Amino acid sequence: MAGNSFGNLFKITTFGESHGRAIGAIIDGCPAGLKIDSDHIQKDLNRRKPGQSSIVTQRKEPDEFEILSGIMNGVTTGTPLCIVVWNTNQKSKDYSHIKDLWRPSHADYTYEKKYGNRDYRGGGRSSARETVARVASGAIAKQILSEVGISINAYVSQVGTIELTKRYDEVDLSLTETNDVRCPDSHIAVQMTNLIKKIKKEGNTIGGKISCVIENVPVGLGEPVFNKLHAIMGSAMMGINAVKGFEYGSGFDSIKMTGSEHNDVFEKKGDDISTGTNFSGGIQGGISNGMPIYFNVAFKPVATIMRDQESINEGGEKVTITGKGRHDPCVVPRAVPIVEAMAALVLVDFLMLNNSIKLEDLL
Amino acid sequence: MAGNSFGNLFKITTFGESHGRAIGAIIDGCPAGLKIDSDHIQKDLNRRKPGQSSIVTQRKEPDEFEILSGIMNGVTTGTPLCIVVWNTNQKSKDYSHIKDLWRPSHADYTYEKKYGNRDYRGGGRSSARETVARVASGAIAKQILSEVGISINAYVSQVGTIELTKRYDEVDLSLTETNDVRCPDSHIAVQMTNLIKKIKKEGNTIGGKISCVIENVPVGLGEPVFNKLHAIMGSAMMGINAVKGFEYGSGFDSIKMTGSEHNDVFEKKGDDISTGTNFSGGIQGGISNGMPIYFNVAFKPVATIMRDQESINEGGEKVTITGKGRHDPCVVPRAVPIVEAMAALVLVDFLMLNNSIKLEDLL
Amino acid sequence: MAGNSFGNLFKITTFGESHGRAIGAIIDGCPAGLKIDSDHIQKDLNRRKPGQSSIVTQRKEPDEFEILSGIMNGVTTGTPLCIVVWNTNQKSKDYSHIKDLWRPSHADYTYEKKYGNRDYRGGGRSSARETVARVASGAIAKQILSEVGISINAYVSQVGTIELTKRYDEVDLSLTETNDVRCPDSHIAVQMTNLIKKIKKEGNTIGGKISCVIENVPVGLGEPVFNKLHAIMGSAMMGINAVKGFEYGSGFDSIKMTGSEHNDVFEKKGDDISTGTNFSGGIQGGISNGMPIYFNVAFKPVATIMRDQESINEGGEKVTITGKGRHDPCVVPRAVPIVEAMAALVLVDFLMLNNSIKLEDLL
Amino acid sequence: MAGNSFGNLFKITTFGESHGRAIGAIIDGCPAGLKIDSDHIQKDLNRRKPGQSSIVTQRKEPDEFEILSGIMNGVTTGTPLCIVVWNTNQKSKDYSHIKDLWRPSHADYTYEKKYGNRDYRGGGRSSARETVARVASGAIAKQILSEVGISINAYVSQVGTIELTKRYDEVDLSLTETNDVRCPDSHIAVQMTNLIKKIKKEGNTIGGKISCVIENVPVGLGEPVFNKLHAIMGSAMMGINAVKGFEYGSGFDSIKMTGSEHNDVFEKKGDDISTGTNFSGGIQGGISNGMPIYFNVAFKPVATIMRDQESINEGGEKVTITGKGRHDPCVVPRAVPIVEAMAALVLVDFLMLNNSIKLEDLL
Repeated sequence: MAGNSFGNLFKITTFGESHGRAIGAIIDGCPAGLKIDSDHIQKDLNRRKPGQSSIVTQRKEPDEFEILSGIMNGVTTGTPLCIVVWNTNQKSKDYSHIKDLWRPSHADYTYEKKYGNRDYRGGGRSSARETVARVASGAIAKQILSEVGISINAYVSQVGTIELTKRYDEVDLSLTETNDVRCPDSHIAVQMTNLIKKIKKEGNTIGGKISCVIENVPVGLGEPVFNKLHAIMGSAMMGINAVKGFEYGSGFDSIKMTGSEHNDVFEKKGDDISTGTNFSGGIQGGISNGMPIYFNVAFKPVATIMRDQESINEGGEKVTITGKGRHDPCVVPRAVPIVEAMAALVLVDFLMLNNSIKLEDLL
Repeated sequence: MAGNSFGNLFKITTFGESHGRAIGAIIDGCPAGLKIDSDHIQKDLNRRKPGQSSIVTQRKEPDEFEILSGIMNGVTTGTPLCIVVWNTNQKSKDYSHIKDLWRPSHADYTYEKKYGNRDYRGGGRSSARETVARVASGAIAKQILSEVGISINAYVSQVGTIELTKRYDEVDLSLTETNDVRCPDSHIAVQMTNLIKKIKKEGNTIGGKISCVIENVPVGLGEPVFNKLHAIMGSAMMGINAVKGFEYGSGFDSIKMTGSEHNDVFEKKGDDISTGTNFSGGIQGGISNGMPIYFNVAFKPVATIMRDQESINEGGEKVTITGKGRHDPCVVPRAVPIVEAMAALVLVDFLMLNNSIKLEDLL
Repeated sequence: MAGNSFGNLFKITTFGESHGRAIGAIIDGCPAGLKIDSDHIQKDLNRRKPGQSSIVTQRKEPDEFEILSGIMNGVTTGTPLCIVVWNTNQKSKDYSHIKDLWRPSHADYTYEKKYGNRDYRGGGRSSARETVARVASGAIAKQILSEVGISINAYVSQVGTIELTKRYDEVDLSLTETNDVRCPDSHIAVQMTNLIKKIKKEGNTIGGKISCVIENVPVGLGEPVFNKLHAIMGSAMMGINAVKGFEYGSGFDSIKMTGSEHNDVFEKKGDDISTGTNFSGGIQGGISNGMPIYFNVAFKPVATIMRDQESINEGGEKVTITGKGRHDPCVVPRAVPIVEAMAALVLVDFLMLNNSIKLEDLL
Repeated sequence: MAGNSFGNLFKITTFGESHGRAIGAIIDGCPAGLKIDSDHIQKDLNRRKPGQSSIVTQRKEPDEFEILSGIMNGVTTGTPLCIVVWNTNQKSKDYSHIKDLWRPSHADYTYEKKYGNRDYRGGGRSSARETVARVASGAIAKQILSEVGISINAYVSQVGTIELTKRYDEVDLSLTETNDVRCPDSHIAVQMTNLIKKIKKEGNTIGGKISCVIENVPVGLGEPVFNKLHAIMGSAMMGINAVKGFEYGSGFDSIKMTGSEHNDVFEKKGDDISTGTNFSGGIQGGISNGMPIYFNVAFKPVATIMRDQESINEGGEKVTITGKGRHDPCVVPRAVPIVEAMAALVLVDFLMLNNSIKLEDLL
């Protein structure tokens, strides 16, 4: 209710502020018998980690995790896993200058008004550092999905005006991790990197887009009406910091299309049923149809810029805010594993829900 | 869990297929003491009703509602309201030809595979007729919101390539209901209407876009992290039939913007705090900041077309489907009240949730 | 949240007042492919029905049900079932004398204060008539359980001081329905019946106890910590009107026992693991262990008596209430199917939840 | 769903095994602006702590807590609180002898069968040590309740056959903490203590009963139908380890009473409305009526005894289990703060829920 939980059968509840003791999550409902792959979790945390390359924030945070409960000899027991990442590199003093004022397009003002107080250090709970708990939890979800053959691959498809125009099925997903910006096209990746560097030099920030492809999803995931697969996926993505839009399959382009162009014709090849085109994005009536699921997520430019900005303080007086600290010029390279993590949480939950749909499932 | 409920404190659970006895909803958590405005509910149902104009489906359904519980002398008692709309114009025979086959880009195949059987008549539960229950429930939610001064106005902003390019604050919302297409610009409305008529004559369908503006929202609605106001709003919109995308505030355009362009500077005028620009779309850190909330919803072209289409049947054999029945050439004119209804459900729920955020709320 | 829903994967939401249009329930999550046995549902409704014998209220209500959605050709489709029972025998005038006053030990005062108004006719939503929706829903749950071999049998084990002292495993459950009071011992049943008749003649009411035995439950149902099988079962029972207490297995008698007496020793016979004694009541650590589950539920005497009683009205003035209408002298004979219904709802939900506990369940 | 969360608006999710790194809880929904009273929390933890007196287990665990998130300068910010208690005194070797066998009346067998594996050390997640997280969370809930004037006092009312026969309103609650057994009657307390010592000397254990009184509850808490105040309270109590029964108000005694004896007559004194008797236990129709709430909770004898017991191992062979380790001869003295904690969690949640019941609450 208070919004710090996500999922139903596979449910995570996160806690922690960027400058408190720790960030973490409880995973309630993780199936028993899963051998936790710590390297895999750490690898995803490292993909999200600050300081990983020259085009992201230069803060140094080791982001090592610890599992406090729910495993025995490295195997899940079916009881709740509590995963924590200790905060170690907080420079709380960096934030004393914003204690009594509201940074433009941050959550300072809304938190203050909603709660009557706020942890102003590093954005407190509104910090994107909260997503470290999602990535750790999502890595476990991804491990479960890989056991059933489902793969999730996100990549950066746009930075500012530099766009990867290839369709989801024209992209070589194995190239994503070969460059700092996480674009699976080395030529475009260079352009994106150069743009980010230029923007950074100007003390500014820039928006971006992440695309995600999910393959080998069994037919039947997603619930009709309110919990359509894409509705919960959309909610998962919109819940990531800085996200402004979500579209799946044909998305906003479908507005201009006619039905005869847009309809995906069913085909049967051997025992497999597929569709010729995939404007449906792998989801029909809110339920996966076995085709690849793909979607786009729009990220706004980071609000913290290294320039002077006008604002007001709590007393309503005009103030000038000077950009300080170590921040990302563009959020999308580090957000790729976050998108994957949230997508994995959605899918594992629907997979578990789908286990009791037919009477025969109970017999 | 099974996805037929929406909301937490103000929760609706819908039931009914397009060709069953009735469509309806239970509203659990409606505050006591609300004098139900039946005319207001019926007016919204009429805005969604088939046969209302020449550019929508010509099915005739009276869509009159009945409240079976939860009111005494027209006033809510705090107990669950069950609202039903009886089905009266079903022509189930229209659908016998699709009993054993899967229409392209419909939910036939996915429902069949998920559940092992399906109600094929009129799409059964996947029919957009299910939204009649949402509109009735949403009308009650809108009535509550109007008591606290919040207004919700949706309108059609695009049909195919015909686009209303005015910003949300340049539009005269009082014009929306003056034309059949529900576009608040009479010049553009004519173009949209003509396009829809042309498409219909071709036995085809076309996509569209609905924009929505919410005004006078108090500061503080929405929950941080997963239940951000725009995350739940996005989920609500993505859960409407035929929706392919959602964006709020600057949306997908933010990708190309820099932070210095995008940041909304706070201003104080008298006692009021506002922002100069409103790229944030009235939401910062997932919480309303008092500025107008605005968002766009993309609808794909209706899948049922009046043309022959190839598909396969349950046996995997190729078949030709002939378009039959009475269907919408473009869904957006009738979807305007659905968008408003879902938005209202989201806001009432957050309003109620927000009543216990501070310790002082309990004292 | 507002408390009109029960269950998670198999969830019912009930609506309706005793003197409104109808009482009903939406079942969301009923597995697809169940052939609904209407006779079975009606049979359970008849066991709860007023006027069924001389020892219950003489109101005449046919209590026939109708399913508005979620089935096709009598088989569930996996979409929500809405079941309604129409109200037909309301005598609202019977209640005008209590419009402005608070009957002792009823919900009049608390509803009025909580909601600011109330439907005073027949107790409105607080009427035990609401349970008709539970019995109909529970009958469907019982049908599912019978498919997996689980049986639920409740019976009256005490009325006033007349007590059936046989243990749960000494009782012949096939005798329960052979007498009006639903006690599976014909000798004790006569004594109970006589006591109820005597109490009724005196214009008074009397309390009672229902016992319930559940057999063939697979090992593993129930969730540790808060959702222990007996915690949710207890909640289900305490949620029935007039219930004042719940105990399972050794119950309150365990207080006087020592560990060496109370511990149930495991035994292996062939492939079956069982326990010599069953003080655990079939549940250990909140999870079913395969032994019979048994529990007791205490019901207070009905608050409506056919005698003059003192009370106060809304203005705080003393008033005398004269007993009127047609009421039960003892609630337990009609509550037997309600206990079974709620138990069935609990078990089906845990059965479905248990389908995704181990990783291998997903593979 | 997986059962490690409790509550709705004020929701706790617990984690941790008795022999893992830590036990803890996330509190999601704690109102902002509460100054945390650490001494108060520690005091309640100390009341639950092992080794506190000669009649409880002699394990030494400091049970000191740490709050990892959700507070700034000691005041809650409205974001999730994560409270942990580190495990420090685990003697895992004590448990190696039970690794492959099932102790009578423990959760060994059911966990093993449900999950396919289990943490056998100290009962793992089924250990009563899990309740340390509830007590810490409940202490915060009690602090909130004390701000609104509500007090919760539990006490031991029975150990074996030694019973405190005084009614809830005849007891001097200030005496509870004056003796080790937590019985508010020094004479009875001595008898209880002697019985526990005798039982302990015999290597045996004994059951007990805890009573709880809640005063100054405002009228209106609790939700009708399934979430009646006593239904959720019953669920909260039945969810505590070793609990076998729950009754409130007249409880099981009401079975023998007539309506004319049992009905609580309303009275008006000055502006206050009360009832002459209080068999209703402060709850009518599931909603608090302003009178004291009182209830009883039955605890079975602890399953671990210091005697040889027969059982079987995983292979189905007969084995003899020798009692080992440091265990409680009677659980009730240490369970008093657990009962209070769970009661507090129930009440705070209902208090918050009740803030949006009437339309006027929203205006």
